[in-house]
Amino acid sequence: MLAVTALRNLTACIVVIGNEVLSGRTQDANIRFLAQRLGDMGMPVREVRIIPDVTDTIVRTINEVRAAFDHVFTTGGIGPTHDDITSECIAAAFGVPWEPHPVVWARMEAHYPPGSFNAARQRMATMPRGAVLIDNGQTIAPGFSMGNVHVMAGVPAIMRVMFDMLAPTLPVGTPVISRSVHARDMREGDLAAGLTDIQARYPTLDLGSYPYYRDNVAGVAIVAKGTDAVLAESAIAEVTALFKDLGGTPLDGEPG
Amino acid sequence: MLAVTALRNLTACIVVIGNEVLSGRTQDANIRFLAQRLGDMGMPVREVRIIPDVTDTIVRTINEVRAAFDHVFTTGGIGPTHDDITSECIAAAFGVPWEPHPVVWARMEAHYPPGSFNAARQRMATMPRGAVLIDNGQTIAPGFSMGNVHVMAGVPAIMRVMFDMLAPTLPVGTPVISRSVHARDMREGDLAAGLTDIQARYPTLDLGSYPYYRDNVAGVAIVAKGTDAVLAESAIAEVTALFKDLGGTPLDGEPG
Repeated sequence: MLAVTALRNLTACIVVIGNEVLSGRTQDANIRFLAQRLGDMGMPVREVRIIPDVTDTIVRTINEVRAAFDHVFTTGGIGPTHDDITSECIAAAFGVPWEPHPVVWARMEAHYPPGSFNAARQRMATMPRGAVLIDNGQTIAPGFSMGNVHVMAGVPAIMRVMFDMLAPTLPVGTPVISRSVHARDMREGDLAAGLTDIQARYPTLDLGSYPYYRDNVAGVAIVAKGTDAVLAESAIAEVTALFKDLGGTPLDGEPG
Repeated sequence: MLAVTALRNLTACIVVIGNEVLSGRTQDANIRFLAQRLGDMGMPVREVRIIPDVTDTIVRTINEVRAAFDHVFTTGGIGPTHDDITSECIAAAFGVPWEPHPVVWARMEAHYPPGSFNAARQRMATMPRGAVLIDNGQTIAPGFSMGNVHVMAGVPAIMRVMFDMLAPTLPVGTPVISRSVHARDMREGDLAAGLTDIQARYPTLDLGSYPYYRDNVAGVAIVAKGTDAVLAESAIAEVTALFKDLGGTPLDGEPG
């Protein structure tokens, strides 16, 4: 396992592009899926941005985050309508032409009935020069990668297919694992000092404390995340002992 | 209504602070609530950032967005544990001391049994100098405002109470309203050219096109958002006519 644990932790950023999430019309369903999958691959998400369909904002954001994180994953804005401007913005961000992609163009032209491969659909076959397709087994707007920026659909079912196609092409870091313990008879304010001490003894772990309310009972869950399962188990054992010291009743895992 | 419609549109930014959303452990439940409420108040959300419990990231992000947007709303990181660092980061961002708040301190000291108002809970009574409390009718960690930055809890039930207390103190812009039409027998790619023309005739509206899939039927919903209901209704009437021209069956509103 030495080779694996020696890998640097990769970082990911998600950019959700679309007015519908910002306006509250739509509940985002992509962030959590991507965060879990990328964490499992050892590429934890370190930041998410949700931005509107505005050219300047998209271009500026993409250029900022592609420099700051190892990989960037965008969702939304690659359909055929006037508010779908992600693809041309990626071209602008990279300073390359936005031009017909011969493979996609030919495939979509063959797919649609004569006359239906119109100007709007042709936009979906237009990509930044150098784009590498993220295929999805269908002829709908394909996703693509430009360098470390991976451009996917906003519709969750399509995004997930695209991510499944993309994932094997991505580098893999050390998977993030988690261990947890909770108690229905503990409060964060009583635990905090002891938790601070435990966190200090495990600097490579991320120890999270999450109060919860279930059936009118207030409890707290402690989650240790990191890349070393033995350390995480050891830290959670210490938290379990802390719960007991304080008169609490620790229960394995997170509240069901 | 002239006075109201003459108001400049205010802008809002949401900053979600917490590793639990970034790791995919928790599905965020605050963004949509805030986006809808702020839109109704005429302060549409123009950007969301989800960032980790990391001091440098929080301080840098807060300073960036408080300069770029009229109002900033943060959720998360104001509890008693080691990973709750939002309050001290806000003080650092504003360059002011982080110090005991006499009102909160006295209230919490009176609330807890002797000995239970410990160092961890005292941190919740410690605030940036100049903070204005966002009361929530309880003695749990209060939220606060520093200038145009409004700091709230991450637990949705508590955040909502805080926002209800905060909202009447905020300026009000022109409420964002929306009108919509949808069809189960239309595709975005056939509508796109006509929609682009309609959007061009209504530059003050935001015309969104949203494909959907229900019961194995693919349809599309068109939503016009703006501050002028008459214009929005007029634009949606044009979209309805476009649907009919293309042989579709327009239905009022969004798909149920």
